[in-house]
Amino acid sequence: MEVLAATVETLRIPQVVDLTAIVIGALTGGLLAAREGFAVSGVLLLAVSGGLGGGLIRDVLLASAPPVALTDPAYLPTVAVTAAVTFYFSGWLSRLTRLLVVLDALTLGFFTVIGAQKAQLAELPSASVVFLGTLTAVGGTLIRDVLLAQRADIVGPGPYNAVAALIGASVLTVLAGPLDLPPLPVAAIVITLVAGLRVLSVWRG
Amino acid sequence: MEVLAATVETLRIPQVVDLTAIVIGALTGGLLAAREGFAVSGVLLLAVSGGLGGGLIRDVLLASAPPVALTDPAYLPTVAVTAAVTFYFSGWLSRLTRLLVVLDALTLGFFTVIGAQKAQLAELPSASVVFLGTLTAVGGTLIRDVLLAQRADIVGPGPYNAVAALIGASVLTVLAGPLDLPPLPVAAIVITLVAGLRVLSVWRG
Amino acid sequence: MEVLAATVETLRIPQVVDLTAIVIGALTGGLLAAREGFAVSGVLLLAVSGGLGGGLIRDVLLASAPPVALTDPAYLPTVAVTAAVTFYFSGWLSRLTRLLVVLDALTLGFFTVIGAQKAQLAELPSASVVFLGTLTAVGGTLIRDVLLAQRADIVGPGPYNAVAALIGASVLTVLAGPLDLPPLPVAAIVITLVAGLRVLSVWRG
Repeated sequence: MEVLAATVETLRIPQVVDLTAIVIGALTGGLLAAREGFAVSGVLLLAVSGGLGGGLIRDVLLASAPPVALTDPAYLPTVAVTAAVTFYFSGWLSRLTRLLVVLDALTLGFFTVIGAQKAQLAELPSASVVFLGTLTAVGGTLIRDVLLAQRADIVGPGPYNAVAALIGASVLTVLAGPLDLPPLPVAAIVITLVAGLRVLSVWRG
Repeated sequence: MEVLAATVETLRIPQVVDLTAIVIGALTGGLLAAREGFAVSGVLLLAVSGGLGGGLIRDVLLASAPPVALTDPAYLPTVAVTAAVTFYFSGWLSRLTRLLVVLDALTLGFFTVIGAQKAQLAELPSASVVFLGTLTAVGGTLIRDVLLAQRADIVGPGPYNAVAALIGASVLTVLAGPLDLPPLPVAAIVITLVAGLRVLSVWRG
Repeated sequence: MEVLAATVETLRIPQVVDLTAIVIGALTGGLLAAREGFAVSGVLLLAVSGGLGGGLIRDVLLASAPPVALTDPAYLPTVAVTAAVTFYFSGWLSRLTRLLVVLDALTLGFFTVIGAQKAQLAELPSASVVFLGTLTAVGGTLIRDVLLAQRADIVGPGPYNAVAALIGASVLTVLAGPLDLPPLPVAAIVITLVAGLRVLSVWRG
């Protein structure tokens, strides 16, 4: 019951947005695998990490029930279909670099918001809300880097998606806490902020 | 109570088979560590990953209670004894390559079945049953690869244990779902299938 | 309620000691990141791993509630402040090598005790108490190694912090189990033992 309530509460953002973010996350992960010439199982694995990894880490840390990625019957099949499409059309998809950068940045913002809002619903302190928002956003990339045995992106000074998520989650804590704005405008502001910071950082290299 | 019931339900396969699979998993992990010349702590760590890693990941994702690997008093001691034996007799054990390949393949099938059946008992959707079956089967190898900082086996096109587990878990979902066969024959069929695919793939390189 | 009770029970060691251990863990992690020239996000990440990583792994495996690292409002801010201090004063802090080795060894002992005591409170079998004590102690280092994609320290024969923690946790099981000594002296003995073993192993190389 508690789980259902929590899910309904967080999904102030319509489910279609939710699934879109998962598709983009899976697409980005799968494309990287396809570009490195991985087998179909590798593409599937990186698509799962990219689309569901952040949410899996978040839900395991919240420890209230099995992760939404496992209880919602739509998530895993969506990722599997995305992985298959990515595997067979990777050449064509790779040409959409610019579009992908923008979509990927929006996904980063979306995952930040979902992670932070879920932590707020669990009544965790503000610092933990920021932590879970950031970790949900970068979790997929972390898992990918770990599976590929490459030094986690996050420690370097490169295009800073972790920093963008951290700033976004902090702003969310202020807007939703002391200022007490309603969740939907807060989500819109934070997603725009995180995506903007991310796109800027990619453009500036 | 809930945990106990779930354990009893899944252990339609006798506990001796369960412990045997853990011993084989621990043995395979420990042997690899011994061959690489690791200290006894390394052999112990890889034996724990190989024997209990998949189950630990599965139970953490199911989020209902501490992992069976921790609550069952037989599991960790069994792995510790196996690690000690592996450490001192690794030279002799290494000669049993053929036997180990077959036992390892059976263990892969067994872990697939236990993971999938536990996900079914938790009433997760079919895609999650397949996911958890596969992850339980390859989890130990994943943890090992991560600890050794080597690119996860699973992304490569090599001897495909992840694919064998994925096919096995999918077949299980069909046999136990729409066809509604009883658990024990389903387990036997799936274990044979996964082990057969795995042995075949090792033989063909 | 259950969580609170458990926390109160384990915190037979005063909270100031607890926070000190987290600060030392975060400092050691952050210093390593600073020495490798990581960005501030990298220093923060390794400070979080070093200070809270072991406890996060422990609480996820105990599966009873969100990790204390997230529910206690003091932990994450403490780590963040420590990371900032480490980032700006890393040059100066690096000169305190000898002091850091001793503090780090005490922290290893402290994390061993907290992990083992929490496992005892969860009424896990002795082998699991030893396992969780050891894993809590080395968990932060494990996460760090994984994020840096370097082969986990633990598999090598080097300064053996895992072995020290393992011996300490085993001794704790005996002292607190069959001998039934009260928790505080047990904690003191085990922390001294683990720290001593660790300092000795660093001195001998």
